[in-house]
Amino acid sequence: MTTQMSDDSLPGLLDLARRDYKDLAGQGLKLDLTRGKPAPEQLDLSEGLLDLPSGHTAADGTDVRNYGGLRGLPELRAIFADVLQVPADQLLAGGNSSLEMMHDCLVHALLSVMPGAESRWADQERIVFLCPVPGYDRHFALCERFGIEMVAVPMDGSGPDMDVVERLVAEDAAVKGIWCVPKYSNPSGVSYSDETVARLARMETAAPDFRIFWDNAYAAHHLTDEPVEIADLLALCAESGHPDRAFVFGSTSKITFAGAGVGFFGSSAANVDWLTANNSKRSIGPDKVNQLRHLEFLRDAEGVRAHMDRQRALLAPKFAAVQRILSEELGGTGLATWTDPDGGYFVTLEVVEGCAKEVVRRAAEAGIVLTPAGATHPYGDDPRDATIRIAPSFPGLAELERAMHGLTVCVRLVGYEKAAGA
Amino acid sequence: MTTQMSDDSLPGLLDLARRDYKDLAGQGLKLDLTRGKPAPEQLDLSEGLLDLPSGHTAADGTDVRNYGGLRGLPELRAIFADVLQVPADQLLAGGNSSLEMMHDCLVHALLSVMPGAESRWADQERIVFLCPVPGYDRHFALCERFGIEMVAVPMDGSGPDMDVVERLVAEDAAVKGIWCVPKYSNPSGVSYSDETVARLARMETAAPDFRIFWDNAYAAHHLTDEPVEIADLLALCAESGHPDRAFVFGSTSKITFAGAGVGFFGSSAANVDWLTANNSKRSIGPDKVNQLRHLEFLRDAEGVRAHMDRQRALLAPKFAAVQRILSEELGGTGLATWTDPDGGYFVTLEVVEGCAKEVVRRAAEAGIVLTPAGATHPYGDDPRDATIRIAPSFPGLAELERAMHGLTVCVRLVGYEKAAGA
Repeated sequence: MTTQMSDDSLPGLLDLARRDYKDLAGQGLKLDLTRGKPAPEQLDLSEGLLDLPSGHTAADGTDVRNYGGLRGLPELRAIFADVLQVPADQLLAGGNSSLEMMHDCLVHALLSVMPGAESRWADQERIVFLCPVPGYDRHFALCERFGIEMVAVPMDGSGPDMDVVERLVAEDAAVKGIWCVPKYSNPSGVSYSDETVARLARMETAAPDFRIFWDNAYAAHHLTDEPVEIADLLALCAESGHPDRAFVFGSTSKITFAGAGVGFFGSSAANVDWLTANNSKRSIGPDKVNQLRHLEFLRDAEGVRAHMDRQRALLAPKFAAVQRILSEELGGTGLATWTDPDGGYFVTLEVVEGCAKEVVRRAAEAGIVLTPAGATHPYGDDPRDATIRIAPSFPGLAELERAMHGLTVCVRLVGYEKAAGA
Repeated sequence: MTTQMSDDSLPGLLDLARRDYKDLAGQGLKLDLTRGKPAPEQLDLSEGLLDLPSGHTAADGTDVRNYGGLRGLPELRAIFADVLQVPADQLLAGGNSSLEMMHDCLVHALLSVMPGAESRWADQERIVFLCPVPGYDRHFALCERFGIEMVAVPMDGSGPDMDVVERLVAEDAAVKGIWCVPKYSNPSGVSYSDETVARLARMETAAPDFRIFWDNAYAAHHLTDEPVEIADLLALCAESGHPDRAFVFGSTSKITFAGAGVGFFGSSAANVDWLTANNSKRSIGPDKVNQLRHLEFLRDAEGVRAHMDRQRALLAPKFAAVQRILSEELGGTGLATWTDPDGGYFVTLEVVEGCAKEVVRRAAEAGIVLTPAGATHPYGDDPRDATIRIAPSFPGLAELERAMHGLTVCVRLVGYEKAAGA
């Protein structure tokens, strides 16, 4: 597009960016790249759920319409045991959200003594969680809501910087947890290397009740022909003598219906019993009808894989468009770098330091809404003010292309303005 | 049956009871009167839900399959606004359980400052809840789980003894709440009089953040031609200058599917905003597909009433059988009194003081499982050891009759043994 034009002096580039932005702002756009929501066509892939289940009886004779079954439908757990790398008898199937389960694990840790803990977290002066950055804003919001202190840890291409993690967990018993999105991470797309997973499992922690909140949200959400396999954290923790260290979360939110799927929690038998005992006070059981509906629809782990191939067919062109537009419009400008994920829901765009907030502001003025700059960091504070999360899934392809083009105009505008000291 | 036989001296009655019990124990029964579960035929009334919803779009264009809509589907809330006496814009529709919402209100009160509160409940030395007895064991279990002290308050035919309640809430700022099942109460079947509701609304409490946990679980669950109407607590609280006092709960668990219904929370706008803000950290929204499913199935408040008439047609014969058998077998013996509820799910049987545990034990030995004696009281401790909760809904009629006959045999056995000093 316009970047191919001639004057590549800074004043010329700035001038061009200003004209492009003026043009953009005049288009009256109303585009949204904020949240990792499935597009309607993705939801249509699961429309068959609306006619299910065909009956109301589980394999063991349970009437799924009635109360009970706190651990969830065994047959559905068996499918996701494979997907989430958790033995089925250590996996719980719950309500429509794994975020709820993360929240509730924090609540129960605060208000009752966990396996291996000396006291309730609510009775301790400080609780600290490590937050690999860039990371997921809803994880950080949970910590803030409960007064849990957050310490950012840098990510590299193989996961969190393990030298930093090992030092922090070893030296401070207040460090009780770490948030991890181990596969196709939100928002960088990074998948943890086997070595990173092994180090997380075996590291020595000052806190006896340290927990890894392993949000495997994109376990089946590949975008290439070679799905990433990550190491089995739960097994490695057990082998390393830390069987209770991992809390594994997953859901069908981005497999079937974002708002009406099934969430999963997996851990050691001791942790599962602890959570189930606490859950038993809260609920007489999850929605087993919806679990049976999912079981009939997905059938088995192979069914999940086939379904995720259909999701990929819808998502991959959008991710390809993001890459193409970023390359065409920003490649070689020195104004940005970006990730090219093999799965998941996000692309991370790194702009010139100090420019992310301004890019997001200018984009909003032109009618393109982005996730607030800083959301990828604890307390909404990206110290370099450089990281922007792009969520390409929800808009249609043409709309996405318009939004991405507009975003690159804003990156050029703000980047060149900064370079020019304007 | 056997009670019509001749020898009505105590030794004769005891002898007969022993023979009847021996006969009972020899039958190898396996009957369950423990929980207030709907019977399969009741669940069949809602089988149409399994083919719904017919689409995936709410009235305002919301795609119910996707994320969002923290307050729940407005059209469904409008229906239950009528049923639960809460304005629709102050009513939240949630997941499959109102017990969850009660739990979460306690959690959020413990871990964040409620409207009107001076501090989080977790930061206070003592938190006390009043527990009208007999009451619902799951309410008491929530208090125990969170270390909330329980004080029993006697019930009479018009609700909790308000003289006692008014005194306790006025004199101790640690008294932060009261559990109420205001209509067809669990387990006594008592409905609160208008005067009781008005006194709850207007009483002066030492705690500025006192809350009435108003579990209106049986709002639409009548068993007679004249459904009970209770006073509108939320309106009365507002009129009395205590707008934030009432937390109203309800659900479709015993309207549609016990395990796959929709829970509701209603309160003042301030409380609803407070809960919604806390919920927003926990969840990206409830299962709106299930809410649309319920909307299409129930249609309107009149649809709920018509549906509950069909439920009544299945339940009323069971409750009538309980009354008939208790009258025939225990009437005039002086060994028991019992409630004859106009709605709800339970009958309360009061046996001779000191006999309830033994009756439950003997019944279990004969293959008839009852809710543990004491469950109707805080800490599982019924100081008179006299109250037994009967849940007639789940068994088939013939099975219920067998179980009730067996239970009366046990009441006679234990009652006469006690009278005889055996």
